[in-house]
Amino acid sequence: MSQFSTLTEFAHVLAKLPDADLAACDGAEQRNGQLTKPPGALGRLEELAIWYAGWRGSARPTLEAPQIVIFAGNHGVCAQGVSAFPSEVTVQMVANFEHGGAAINQLAKAFGASMTVHALELDRPTEDFTKAPAMSERDCVTALQTGWDAVDPSADLLVTGEMGIGNTTSGAALGAALFGGAGEDWVGRGTGVDDAGLANKARVVDEGLALHASRDPLEILRCMGGRELAAMAGAIAAARAHRIPVILDGFICTAAASVLEKTQSGALDHCVAGHLSAEGAHGKMLEGLGKEPLLSLGLRLGEGSGAAAAIGVLKAAVACHSGMATFAEAGVSDG
Amino acid sequence: MSQFSTLTEFAHVLAKLPDADLAACDGAEQRNGQLTKPPGALGRLEELAIWYAGWRGSARPTLEAPQIVIFAGNHGVCAQGVSAFPSEVTVQMVANFEHGGAAINQLAKAFGASMTVHALELDRPTEDFTKAPAMSERDCVTALQTGWDAVDPSADLLVTGEMGIGNTTSGAALGAALFGGAGEDWVGRGTGVDDAGLANKARVVDEGLALHASRDPLEILRCMGGRELAAMAGAIAAARAHRIPVILDGFICTAAASVLEKTQSGALDHCVAGHLSAEGAHGKMLEGLGKEPLLSLGLRLGEGSGAAAAIGVLKAAVACHSGMATFAEAGVSDG
Repeated sequence: MSQFSTLTEFAHVLAKLPDADLAACDGAEQRNGQLTKPPGALGRLEELAIWYAGWRGSARPTLEAPQIVIFAGNHGVCAQGVSAFPSEVTVQMVANFEHGGAAINQLAKAFGASMTVHALELDRPTEDFTKAPAMSERDCVTALQTGWDAVDPSADLLVTGEMGIGNTTSGAALGAALFGGAGEDWVGRGTGVDDAGLANKARVVDEGLALHASRDPLEILRCMGGRELAAMAGAIAAARAHRIPVILDGFICTAAASVLEKTQSGALDHCVAGHLSAEGAHGKMLEGLGKEPLLSLGLRLGEGSGAAAAIGVLKAAVACHSGMATFAEAGVSDG
Repeated sequence: MSQFSTLTEFAHVLAKLPDADLAACDGAEQRNGQLTKPPGALGRLEELAIWYAGWRGSARPTLEAPQIVIFAGNHGVCAQGVSAFPSEVTVQMVANFEHGGAAINQLAKAFGASMTVHALELDRPTEDFTKAPAMSERDCVTALQTGWDAVDPSADLLVTGEMGIGNTTSGAALGAALFGGAGEDWVGRGTGVDDAGLANKARVVDEGLALHASRDPLEILRCMGGRELAAMAGAIAAARAHRIPVILDGFICTAAASVLEKTQSGALDHCVAGHLSAEGAHGKMLEGLGKEPLLSLGLRLGEGSGAAAAIGVLKAAVACHSGMATFAEAGVSDG
């Protein structure tokens, strides 16, 4: 387990995370060229398999133990009326996760993933970020560490998901602070606010941006994020320490991940974008990260659901790469 | 098993295939509205689940027995130099399918699908369609029937795939004849022809269009299609008879399916487009059918691979729909 007791120390940990294994990438690339198919005919599945091979350190990797970690947090900014649902839904949905009734439970089962749920001090919401920093440094570091520790080092793929009424507003605030622009450029309808609700969310983000002037990415996370966002960032960083590739979920997860990228360029090289969310500004955020989503099916649920739905694509890529016969093995003419 | 001994009789069978069960659709729609998520938050997965429910005749269906059927055929038009690979590769790849070494074998395993391979008189290629009809009516009907009979009535999802050196040229000829336009509008690089090869394919298609003047869709299939295309069309029709939803694969499969749609409008209501192929004109063909692909990952392999990769998306949709708790069951506030 990594040790960090301040945000500065966390930034130092980020700077020292490992890179992909180039020999494994080369080996995978070479193998890919010998498989019984026309060159490039598996399209993006080929790139994905080679990328995965590099992070797993094997030219012929397997994908058998995906892990889904869900973090839940409550948001003081809900006092500003930013969500169509009351804050109590967060704890109710955590119970739903624990009883197996949510979308993410079904997706975990469908793709053979393990799943853990971490409720982060739900009875102690973050501060309303229009009035004060959402978290103290200690709170933020604790959440990062909880995320870090939630990752199973024996997993071979990680999906991080979240639940937190009000957290699309935090995500929008992070988007604006990290990538530039105003509230209206980054807010969306979340669980379903109307036009007035949307305008209110933009106002709230703008007030946050005005109050919290620092543009240090980890300070932005602390001042306008939430515990579940910090935990996802910690888990994504830990995955890299363990050489576990990550599928990013939608708007909130990508906002949390963006904090890592803006702190340390290249910090998300071990991550692929699982899907394009219907939440307004997700596409812009992915463009900012240079990530092309695997799926585009109009999901906007969170919980890691879009990333979990994409596990099948990555499984398909790895299965083809590692299972197919070569031209020589199959006695097929290579043209 | 359906009986048809002429193309006209096959058209009559098509006209009498069943429609979706509207009561099951309604029941699924109602259930969808009660699940523990904001309305519409699972995006296209919700529509897919309701569509699937309608065809399976159950408001809360399962998806446990997908079937993949692969048909292989050889093409006389290869004499015109339309492919980067020699015709012998068709039989070599059939052996590869049978020994489990191809991409589609890995995808079948990854998604728990059964798979059968049907080699259709590989030592008796179709005629070169620039000189004569590709098939006699008897040959075409035999292939349709082989496809029809290949479908397992107990399957709950069907993917049809193909292998046949030269068959992107047949697919392009069908596209042009069914949807309009010339050879150059419909040909692509297939397994990898160069610019001269592409121009040659366009010439071959134009010669076929000039020689075979009938625009009756089943006549187009007979004159410029191939046994594996006819077999896919037969299998897709049989699936509907058994109320089995279908995921369409790429360019060749969609061309074969288009014959059904052009013969009987609405004949593909039980089909969803699995992916957008990198083969040039596939997108235009899907537009012509009004189908939005589930995946867009640059695949252009055939074998049913793009459709098989999309099985995971449909499994995700059905798993969420049928497995999630309702607001009432979970004690979650619905806003």
